[in-house]
Amino acid sequence: MMLIDPSRKYRPFPQVDLPDRQWPSRTITKPPRWLSTDMRDGNQALIDPMDTEKKTRFFELLTRIGLKEIEVGFPSAGATEFDFISGLVRSGRIPDDVIVQVLTQARRDLIERTFESLQGAKQAIVHVYNAVSPAWRRIVFNMDRPQIKDIAINAAKIIRDEAAKQPNTDWSFEYSPETFSTAELDFSLECCEAVMDILRPTPEKPLILNLPATVEAATPNIYADQIEWFCRHIRDRDSVVISLHPHNDRGTGVAAAELGLLAGADRVEGCLFGNGERTGNCDLVTVALNMYTQGVAPGLDFSNMEEVVQTVTYCNQLPVHPRHPYAGDLVFTAFSGSHQDAIKKGFAAQEQRNDEYWDVPYLPIDPADIGCSYEAVIRVNSQSGKGGVAWVLQQDKGLKLPKRMQGDFSKVVQDMADSSSRELHASDIWDAFEQHYCLTGPQPYSLVDYFESGPAGQRVFTGKIAHNGEERSISGRGNGLISSVLSALREELGIGLDVVDYSEHAIGTGRDVHAAAYVECRTDDGHTVFGVGLDEDIATASVQAVLSVANGLERRVLTSASAA
Amino acid sequence: MMLIDPSRKYRPFPQVDLPDRQWPSRTITKPPRWLSTDMRDGNQALIDPMDTEKKTRFFELLTRIGLKEIEVGFPSAGATEFDFISGLVRSGRIPDDVIVQVLTQARRDLIERTFESLQGAKQAIVHVYNAVSPAWRRIVFNMDRPQIKDIAINAAKIIRDEAAKQPNTDWSFEYSPETFSTAELDFSLECCEAVMDILRPTPEKPLILNLPATVEAATPNIYADQIEWFCRHIRDRDSVVISLHPHNDRGTGVAAAELGLLAGADRVEGCLFGNGERTGNCDLVTVALNMYTQGVAPGLDFSNMEEVVQTVTYCNQLPVHPRHPYAGDLVFTAFSGSHQDAIKKGFAAQEQRNDEYWDVPYLPIDPADIGCSYEAVIRVNSQSGKGGVAWVLQQDKGLKLPKRMQGDFSKVVQDMADSSSRELHASDIWDAFEQHYCLTGPQPYSLVDYFESGPAGQRVFTGKIAHNGEERSISGRGNGLISSVLSALREELGIGLDVVDYSEHAIGTGRDVHAAAYVECRTDDGHTVFGVGLDEDIATASVQAVLSVANGLERRVLTSASAA
Repeated sequence: MMLIDPSRKYRPFPQVDLPDRQWPSRTITKPPRWLSTDMRDGNQALIDPMDTEKKTRFFELLTRIGLKEIEVGFPSAGATEFDFISGLVRSGRIPDDVIVQVLTQARRDLIERTFESLQGAKQAIVHVYNAVSPAWRRIVFNMDRPQIKDIAINAAKIIRDEAAKQPNTDWSFEYSPETFSTAELDFSLECCEAVMDILRPTPEKPLILNLPATVEAATPNIYADQIEWFCRHIRDRDSVVISLHPHNDRGTGVAAAELGLLAGADRVEGCLFGNGERTGNCDLVTVALNMYTQGVAPGLDFSNMEEVVQTVTYCNQLPVHPRHPYAGDLVFTAFSGSHQDAIKKGFAAQEQRNDEYWDVPYLPIDPADIGCSYEAVIRVNSQSGKGGVAWVLQQDKGLKLPKRMQGDFSKVVQDMADSSSRELHASDIWDAFEQHYCLTGPQPYSLVDYFESGPAGQRVFTGKIAHNGEERSISGRGNGLISSVLSALREELGIGLDVVDYSEHAIGTGRDVHAAAYVECRTDDGHTVFGVGLDEDIATASVQAVLSVANGLERRVLTSASAA
Repeated sequence: MMLIDPSRKYRPFPQVDLPDRQWPSRTITKPPRWLSTDMRDGNQALIDPMDTEKKTRFFELLTRIGLKEIEVGFPSAGATEFDFISGLVRSGRIPDDVIVQVLTQARRDLIERTFESLQGAKQAIVHVYNAVSPAWRRIVFNMDRPQIKDIAINAAKIIRDEAAKQPNTDWSFEYSPETFSTAELDFSLECCEAVMDILRPTPEKPLILNLPATVEAATPNIYADQIEWFCRHIRDRDSVVISLHPHNDRGTGVAAAELGLLAGADRVEGCLFGNGERTGNCDLVTVALNMYTQGVAPGLDFSNMEEVVQTVTYCNQLPVHPRHPYAGDLVFTAFSGSHQDAIKKGFAAQEQRNDEYWDVPYLPIDPADIGCSYEAVIRVNSQSGKGGVAWVLQQDKGLKLPKRMQGDFSKVVQDMADSSSRELHASDIWDAFEQHYCLTGPQPYSLVDYFESGPAGQRVFTGKIAHNGEERSISGRGNGLISSVLSALREELGIGLDVVDYSEHAIGTGRDVHAAAYVECRTDDGHTVFGVGLDEDIATASVQAVLSVANGLERRVLTSASAA
């Protein structure tokens, strides 16, 4: 490649003169009004636009999520659109607390057709737009400012008159000075106020003024400046609803929406997972769930994220990226060992704390809040350390390995991951665990039967052990069960082991309860060997754990012998 | 679904006390230093981490793009990492102007192992980190502030001493107070200055202080406030390089990087297409290409975006989303008719203007700057209007349809799109065009031969026309060729047509030049019919265009007749 410099043909985006801007010191304290334009701006950007079945499915999903304002299409764009919309408004399938919105260009025939599609609606928002920026005026329309403003004024008059012809519908109106973010602020204001002159909004029946970043062309702080400037200058501020419509060409659509809300906007238009023309509209899912992390309830319900992803993917025929915030397959997954370790500690601390606040390292929100199980959080590959491996065993098998044993086993997994160079599944880890601690495969020593006797501190272990198939009766004495078993091994079988650490715990509850025992031993020649016992009975699990150590030792001796 | 409210367990993110913040009034005027951490932070977040072949491929891609600082791994994390890194530094494959960076935790054994991996390097950056935030101190480490600071100080000492042992390498150092964005600013500052006390940076040999949003937990303006606060308070500002490391948990990683640069940072760490743990790191491709739209050359070369996408997709085994800024399959695509129309006009205006500035509606940058052809820009579905259809014919066939003919043909395409409910391919449109204007299929009238004679204004057309296979000799008189043909049709064949509009143009250049002629006629009973003629000879194309009208008429009559 050659280092070319196309930057010469681009210009810096102009600043907004607003030295006393207030938005950077504000916080978001309540959710905005949300408008989904999935079925309009989203749909028109699909390779294969939705058919009636998909549109119906999408509409029902949106109402389940809790959207109260839904832009359902562009009725004058074609027969498909018109038929769906007129069918929907007459079907009775629009919940009473949901208002549908439709878009129209600022032309008489299209506006009339739009109102036609809404015949019989209880309530509806008619959304009209015309582009106001210098580039559009010059390149697309070849018109000057007054001509452009006249388009808006004339459209407003037609809308006012058409609405009057259908008095049984409760009408609301929205006007978008399209390409707002690349237009002169004073001219956008002029067009909006000209429309207000015609439609005469009131605080009880406000006009929605939607201010699109039709093409995202500047850093999101500039959009916030534009919104704050507009909110300060528009007359009758309480008679208008300021609506944001950010696109995502620079990958900052979500940020633009958030900073625009700080700047005073009341409403956000966007699509689920950021569908929409080109790079898409701002992503309503992310903007909404971001509110959680600021202590604000978004008023939208994504507690069944999997269903939302599935429906949207089906209808749009576009994927949700594995790293998409809150919704991607990998976004609650930690592969790195130190991350896994911290998350594990965070969950443990969360369980023990008495406050209700979420505070787990690396997890900005509780995966459970979007219907994601904790099990999905940690996955293991060659980048993972002992924390992650231990986590998988705990989640899948209920085993709580002691810390040093985690270290012992993680080396086994690390070697396996290094040599396979792929993600290890939970089943790979469990297979390795059973193999390494002799829970499967050849077991030189196995327990046939045993009983213990004697007072505390002077326990006697009496048992039958099969050694390579041959039964031996052995017995030993100690302070407790483990030490009496070790004593029997040393005295009767010549296996010299001392106990370094021992722990046990129950797995499960009630009738299904099992026991796990872990023992760390040191051999007479100074090696450390770990063992595990699993049994319905906690005492038997302990004996099994000691035999697991003996088996590990014998296997190691056999391996060295055959290698020599 | 039930509307639950998990917001109760989250708290608002605290503001930074910085009422006189300067960053919202600043603009980005130069590119930052870029650090790719694809092979470290990116790699550790992959389902299947890269093997040596993929790492090598990725490294070479990064150097071709122009990255000068590349974090190549975490040498102490395992054998795979260590071997690749030590192999790379000894291979001679690192260009002289590229410096590799490696990460290590703040522990003696790991730092020593890290330096071991770099033996023989000409130059390298050793990057050490420890987490400093209250949540990490309490939950992960159970340590207080002085203990955490001591970890950083001790690590700095070990690094200083290890570097001294390898004096032939030109060492640079980076320290990250991990979890910076959720830590107390004064404590992060304290840790950084403690490390500076040990490593004694100078303006000639600065220390990189990397300030991670390890988990993105607040709106991006807060991160900018934190960065500006830090830049103002750190001592010896000219002896440190302030580096950003935003993650993307709230979908605002790109914005955080941009606002952080406004706030005074010098350097950005990230990954191509935003790979990295969970939702990923900030996307270097987007942050870099966003600079173009501000009139700044990023110093990175993405002019062959397709190669970049292919290599990264291969190495990461993760997709690039179709709506990913600058790189997705759909991001320069406009399906909507009004968008297509505006883009078409924009390209035309761009060709005619004499300045070099890019100004095309809906396209924030010139697709050609990332190696994307104009043809990919416009695709047609049922949302498309006449502009898009005309565009496809122009791009693929070189046809420049007159405006009213665009309207005529777009209805044909609209009907086809409505009934098929899928994207139409260029070939579908071309088939429909040939069919509708009788360039293929039954042609009741066809031209066998003709010649013209007579002075200008009194032309005589004399020709042989086959009508349903039967040859007829006809002639007519008119002001020009078209009118003389129309006259012959009227007088000899009884076809009553008047010409309303006529245009023609060449297709291609040189020896391959062809001609296209378009004619709009009105029938005696007031219908409008369009015709097209394509031929090597411009005069013949005109005659063909008139016959195309006659054929369309006759087919229509036949269709009505058979329907009746």
